[in-house]
Amino acid sequence: MDTEGKHHFEVEESCPRTWARAAMLTTPHGAVPTPVFIPVGTQGTVKSLTPDDLRSLEVKIVLGNTYHLYLRPGIDVIGRLGGLHRFMGWQGPVLTDSGGYQVFSLAHMRRVNDEGVLFRSHIDGSEHFLTPELAIEFQETLGADIIMALDECPPYSDDFDMVRQATERTHRWAERCQKSWRQKRALYGIVQGGVFKELRRESATFLTSLGLAGYAIGGLSLGEPKDITKAIIEETVALLPKDRPRYLMGVGSPEDLFEGVSRGIDLFDSALPTRIARNGSLFTQKGRCIIRNAHFREKDSPIEEDCDCYTCRNFSAAYLHHLFKCEELLAYRLATLHNLRFVIRLMAEMRKHIIDGTFAAFRDSFLESYEPSNEEMRVAQRKKWIESRNMRWQ
Amino acid sequence: MDTEGKHHFEVEESCPRTWARAAMLTTPHGAVPTPVFIPVGTQGTVKSLTPDDLRSLEVKIVLGNTYHLYLRPGIDVIGRLGGLHRFMGWQGPVLTDSGGYQVFSLAHMRRVNDEGVLFRSHIDGSEHFLTPELAIEFQETLGADIIMALDECPPYSDDFDMVRQATERTHRWAERCQKSWRQKRALYGIVQGGVFKELRRESATFLTSLGLAGYAIGGLSLGEPKDITKAIIEETVALLPKDRPRYLMGVGSPEDLFEGVSRGIDLFDSALPTRIARNGSLFTQKGRCIIRNAHFREKDSPIEEDCDCYTCRNFSAAYLHHLFKCEELLAYRLATLHNLRFVIRLMAEMRKHIIDGTFAAFRDSFLESYEPSNEEMRVAQRKKWIESRNMRWQ
Repeated sequence: MDTEGKHHFEVEESCPRTWARAAMLTTPHGAVPTPVFIPVGTQGTVKSLTPDDLRSLEVKIVLGNTYHLYLRPGIDVIGRLGGLHRFMGWQGPVLTDSGGYQVFSLAHMRRVNDEGVLFRSHIDGSEHFLTPELAIEFQETLGADIIMALDECPPYSDDFDMVRQATERTHRWAERCQKSWRQKRALYGIVQGGVFKELRRESATFLTSLGLAGYAIGGLSLGEPKDITKAIIEETVALLPKDRPRYLMGVGSPEDLFEGVSRGIDLFDSALPTRIARNGSLFTQKGRCIIRNAHFREKDSPIEEDCDCYTCRNFSAAYLHHLFKCEELLAYRLATLHNLRFVIRLMAEMRKHIIDGTFAAFRDSFLESYEPSNEEMRVAQRKKWIESRNMRWQ
Repeated sequence: MDTEGKHHFEVEESCPRTWARAAMLTTPHGAVPTPVFIPVGTQGTVKSLTPDDLRSLEVKIVLGNTYHLYLRPGIDVIGRLGGLHRFMGWQGPVLTDSGGYQVFSLAHMRRVNDEGVLFRSHIDGSEHFLTPELAIEFQETLGADIIMALDECPPYSDDFDMVRQATERTHRWAERCQKSWRQKRALYGIVQGGVFKELRRESATFLTSLGLAGYAIGGLSLGEPKDITKAIIEETVALLPKDRPRYLMGVGSPEDLFEGVSRGIDLFDSALPTRIARNGSLFTQKGRCIIRNAHFREKDSPIEEDCDCYTCRNFSAAYLHHLFKCEELLAYRLATLHNLRFVIRLMAEMRKHIIDGTFAAFRDSFLESYEPSNEEMRVAQRKKWIESRNMRWQ
């Protein structure tokens, strides 16, 4: 069945005061109103949740990680079992990444050249070689609605030459991805260029010239100061075509989602809301709360009084506190439901306010009461993570 | 609100060929058709499941462990939060144990005398003293529908005097429980006596003389050969009043449930179906299957083709195999849903066949195709567990 004709993207409304826009992204597995947050289903499951849970949260689209699914259970296995949608029981839209990001951040001992990237599995150390052509083949076998070109994602660095090399290789790989692509899935390219505006401009211009279905911004939120992130997004978005979806990769905190939407981003994905949920860090209108804190021991009301999530409608903060203290499996699911619902609802509200022409006021009002997680701590945590990542980069 | 009048037990049908019976147990939080399996909600949650999950499985009654809830979050905390039903969001019937079993099996460094039992928390080593009066007070504060008298549960042993002492103390404690009991909850006594028929007869006779609401059989499935378990159940049930519920504690494998029902047992509880589920051991009509086995890697059909559980209706065995291989949180929930539904459905089928007069044939047909887990391995595993338990007993 040729479902190519079912891909479509249409901007519905634009904010008069920011670059924010509301659009409809149509895929063979359903329509996705944007701006939208894409939960990460790394290994064929959004951790702790069923597809029914996702539907109840009003999740519209899910991300699958090609790298993880390649290692386990194997792309061929999922292909023989009817593709990723059928395997994981999710009939809505699916976006897969190319595997590149994990190969460059999670895998060990790799060597990269123009041909492709040699890496060792983080699970058993086995050696594998990934090329642009294979990345496309894998994603086509998985049967994703939206697939990503293979990119080289360099770490946050002020080494211009290194970043330029990676960016140029990303461009050559994007061309090869486009050539081997069988045109059924929507193929998105990934803009690289690190923190260098010149490289970002070159990258956006080059990828746009390929006429792809959508454009992602990669290589951000890797430890750089937030002001730089914002400036790079602005520089890049300004050069991307208005009639194609824009996807900011790896961004998912409420404050960052507002910054991205304000700058014209349509799609976001991040493991952050689900990962911090499993650590007991829960979103509220005032910022994150740490459910393990003694403060919640006898709190008879929900985490947030007017939250419409399953967890808040059925359980007290005291119960959740107890589950986390006892490390009960249910804790992780209830916390994940809350954080994901918080972010999904927030995006739906942003969309509504964009359509109503009140987005800027909504953003200002939200950010006024929401205290972002400490910037210093955030940068320190990121730096630590980046360092461990750079160790593997050597 | 005085809900005492709402407790009721009525035998509806008896099997002509075995001692099996179908009855209706009425509690202030709803009716429980028996025979019934009671899932274990140790710490205020049946591990990995929500109350909605339990309802979807047609679970009718849940067990809470007083020992665990006493240590975390504390009986007083749950009391101030409105009781266990409200705390865990389960509005159906709840049975609590007395805490005795865990004190004698899980806690450390204890000393037992007629006054009560001194134990150390298995979590932080703190010292606590449990008496019959406290056991009742705790369960009344939790607000359970059915509460258990404090018993002394000795390990499986051929030391007649030791078991006799524990049995007699159990009787004195049952009297004290009955005296301190405020008559709102249904109070059950626990028959002890180890593998000694004489002691079991004495225990059943003594407890029956107290005129309690129900009678449990404790101290079995602790490593003794299955033939002895069966003989002791028969010896005990014969002396228990026909018009009161009979509860076999700690039994939950399909084959053992049939043996118990055949001998006139109405209620069963066990962590086995949920615990082995989390280890990837799943019930089928042919016996347990190990979902991690390579055999399931590409099995496109469910664990059991005609199983009506959520897991089997939505996912392939291959997907479950993958989740277990990746140690994904969803694995534990999907496996738990399957095993619990298997046991709950089995009990409902037994009940239907008792009412239809076809129970014996149904049992024979099930046991003919169901291969129980290896008896030798079972006894060895039990022995190992018992030895570690006896170490603590010293």
